[in-house]
Amino acid sequence: MYTDRIKLSSLTDKIKDVTEVLDLFKDGMVVASSGFTKAGDSKVILPALAANNTSHPIKITLITGASLGHDTDAKLTEAGVLAKRMPFQVDKVLREAINKGEVLFVDQNLSETSEMLLDRHLPEIDIAIIEAAFITADGGIVPTTSVGNSPIFVDKAKKVIIEINMAVQPDVYGLHDVYLPEAYPNRKPIEILQPNDRIGSPVIPIDPDKIAAIVLSHQQDSPADITEIDDKTSAIAGHLIDFFTDEVRAGRLTKSLRPLQAGIGKVANAVLTGLAESDFEGLTMFSEVLQDSAFELIDAGKLTFASAASITVSAACYERVFDNLEKYKDKIVLRPQSISNAPEVIRRLGIIGINTAIEFDIYGNVNSSHISGTQMMNGIGGSGDFARNAHISIFVTQAASKENNISHVLPMVTHVDHNEHNVDVVVTDIGYADLRGLAPRERALKIINNCVHPDYKEELQSYFDRAVAEVGGQTPHLLDEAFLWHKRLKETGSMKALNK
Amino acid sequence: MYTDRIKLSSLTDKIKDVTEVLDLFKDGMVVASSGFTKAGDSKVILPALAANNTSHPIKITLITGASLGHDTDAKLTEAGVLAKRMPFQVDKVLREAINKGEVLFVDQNLSETSEMLLDRHLPEIDIAIIEAAFITADGGIVPTTSVGNSPIFVDKAKKVIIEINMAVQPDVYGLHDVYLPEAYPNRKPIEILQPNDRIGSPVIPIDPDKIAAIVLSHQQDSPADITEIDDKTSAIAGHLIDFFTDEVRAGRLTKSLRPLQAGIGKVANAVLTGLAESDFEGLTMFSEVLQDSAFELIDAGKLTFASAASITVSAACYERVFDNLEKYKDKIVLRPQSISNAPEVIRRLGIIGINTAIEFDIYGNVNSSHISGTQMMNGIGGSGDFARNAHISIFVTQAASKENNISHVLPMVTHVDHNEHNVDVVVTDIGYADLRGLAPRERALKIINNCVHPDYKEELQSYFDRAVAEVGGQTPHLLDEAFLWHKRLKETGSMKALNK
Repeated sequence: MYTDRIKLSSLTDKIKDVTEVLDLFKDGMVVASSGFTKAGDSKVILPALAANNTSHPIKITLITGASLGHDTDAKLTEAGVLAKRMPFQVDKVLREAINKGEVLFVDQNLSETSEMLLDRHLPEIDIAIIEAAFITADGGIVPTTSVGNSPIFVDKAKKVIIEINMAVQPDVYGLHDVYLPEAYPNRKPIEILQPNDRIGSPVIPIDPDKIAAIVLSHQQDSPADITEIDDKTSAIAGHLIDFFTDEVRAGRLTKSLRPLQAGIGKVANAVLTGLAESDFEGLTMFSEVLQDSAFELIDAGKLTFASAASITVSAACYERVFDNLEKYKDKIVLRPQSISNAPEVIRRLGIIGINTAIEFDIYGNVNSSHISGTQMMNGIGGSGDFARNAHISIFVTQAASKENNISHVLPMVTHVDHNEHNVDVVVTDIGYADLRGLAPRERALKIINNCVHPDYKEELQSYFDRAVAEVGGQTPHLLDEAFLWHKRLKETGSMKALNK
Repeated sequence: MYTDRIKLSSLTDKIKDVTEVLDLFKDGMVVASSGFTKAGDSKVILPALAANNTSHPIKITLITGASLGHDTDAKLTEAGVLAKRMPFQVDKVLREAINKGEVLFVDQNLSETSEMLLDRHLPEIDIAIIEAAFITADGGIVPTTSVGNSPIFVDKAKKVIIEINMAVQPDVYGLHDVYLPEAYPNRKPIEILQPNDRIGSPVIPIDPDKIAAIVLSHQQDSPADITEIDDKTSAIAGHLIDFFTDEVRAGRLTKSLRPLQAGIGKVANAVLTGLAESDFEGLTMFSEVLQDSAFELIDAGKLTFASAASITVSAACYERVFDNLEKYKDKIVLRPQSISNAPEVIRRLGIIGINTAIEFDIYGNVNSSHISGTQMMNGIGGSGDFARNAHISIFVTQAASKENNISHVLPMVTHVDHNEHNVDVVVTDIGYADLRGLAPRERALKIINNCVHPDYKEELQSYFDRAVAEVGGQTPHLLDEAFLWHKRLKETGSMKALNK
């Protein structure tokens, strides 16, 4: 019964039907919602806002933890609800609207939205929608499969609507570690010294008067898309594991490495799966998202602890984890993204950050977000938080794609999300380049030798040689030619020269 | 007498003449030297290495804190001593050699060199040269006008040579707070909660057996170049103070602001001087370098405490400070650059970072290091450490220069040191643009409206409008035209169109 889920009985009269709460939303409002990489998002109110927008059309600013599931961003976009969206998204329909300029997208480092809300560097939140497993007798919100930005949303919003998700079992209580830093100038250290340290509360505290309504939902998170590990992905994972092996051999790492962060997607999944089959052991994670591979590593006895802001897994893995939660509960923790991605903790723990690049250039600058320098894919996400402060910052991508008509190693990237200073190692299916301690001209030679697809190697070497000879400098470039490959792609469908 | 400067008497027999120690240096060695923005650098051994290089030519890798004084980098370059240099430099002769490819330059975030040395991500240091005021009875090194990277150099070098500078008074003892983080995986929080917190030792500990030699020097640091505050600089400072005033009015800041970081140079100096004449009060600094203006603010009673890695001041200010050190000693502290620039502390204290850009683009991406995308000026320095983790990250530059033939606000920067995600406010002599919470298309309009020199405003607006119409996207660009202004500059000496 849903009354079991509201242990503070004075709140039971706040239970409302979805249709009753929609009137709270007005045109121009700033709305925040729980949800991080499709986990723990609003399952009923945001979709209802979209469905309702023909009768009472409004436009809002929507701030979340990260991406939403159940095509909610698509529904909101199609219904014209979104004026502005931040700090991240992964939705084809929304992406198209962003690139047309119909929705303004503020692409943020995922640790920073909370910081900006704290001191009103962003507009005030009118309503926050927070998915919960239940409400404690003290009026604490027990989150579900993510924490994300929910603590700051609850703290800063004028009103809060709680979605109690009956499909999430109440035994998730204890999975979360909720901590918000003190206000300036009285901040204290974030006392996480190991990935498994707990420093906060199992619930998000809330003033009950702020709760405008409680609604019920009955739907699980959208499952993660599972892609088969293909040859290229497997080659990338293999090279990365070679790098780790070389580091252990050189005495710079042990077999338990350092706490790992792995971005979303098939390459990260493949790397972790590769580690399960390796002789590394006693691994830990301090990351944003736990995917299937994290639980595979736990089951294989390789991963002793994993910290993140959300759990985003396939349907099968969801069942395995949440039907046996007691088995995993002392091995995982979910934190607010201002903590999972905190610069302080990332540097203190000496994180090894593994993130995916769209493309990188011969000097090691990385584009993670923009196709051809202009069209948004998903956003920077947490890659910046990790790359900037990690002990070893690694970026992975395939050397070439689309029947090798696109090279992902370029003379110059058209958009820089991570510059040479924050990129230690780059890996493609061809090989890896360890860039630590190298000057740009040295980096270029190593990247061209180790990472480029053979179809592009000669021309990239020629670009570099001519840039050195004709222009020189710390970072030799021919500005006239720097984006030539992107131009060719646009005009001919291939980055290759016509005579190739 | 110099024997007063070596309080551990067993070390006195290590005193040598400079000529006696030069034999320790061999071809291919990695040499480290104290010195941060011309303060506390090697005054005798590095220059002697240069002078000696005709008879015994060697090439070395030289790692410092930051820049060196007394044209030492020029002398080393001209003598052909430098194979590789890191992590920063400000020298005309060296810069030219770097850009010709004669010296390899590894341009690093200044907090990171220490991190990379800690776990041997850089080659091992053969010899470290450390300037000291004296050596304590316990064998501790008392630094002079900077701490910089000296603690990690002493910790990691195979051999250490100490230069005791007789021109520095021993009463600098107590000015420094030396702290090195624990080795992984046992790192603790850096317990700095306010700029004036001290967490370390007044000396750099050293195993006396590591000391290969002690030499004497008698020369003060190179004085800082003092440039008059001109109209443009003063306009930039004025706009920045307007921004602070607006923040106080909005209730986001108080009159004591937050701890300030100010990059080197005349604009930062002008801003601090402007603050001395404003009604802000109870200010603090948590910065890299203390320039004349910091002491002016202290003398004006506006600045209550200043933390940095070095003191780099004019000859007159040097006298004022070091002849009256007791007056300033409880108001300043010098720290290792891994602490002055620590991500953890920068975010915890909520630093306002003010750094100089060479150019920025309509979306707020900043180039701080490369002229025309290829030629190195000085390096990224600490600007990245601060911009990435500051609570408010501000970049300043003049709107146009060289009789307005160069615009410093551009369609696209040719090199990205700080991307849109880490740039909150940009300021020119025309005005400021507060970019917080804005999508790229909004940022562009605000920058074009508020910051661009009138000679370039129309064309920049046209570029943006055409990029939106013809290409669109999250970050509209015309890749064919993005670097056109740089091309014009190269061909005609002006970024302006010929018909202008």
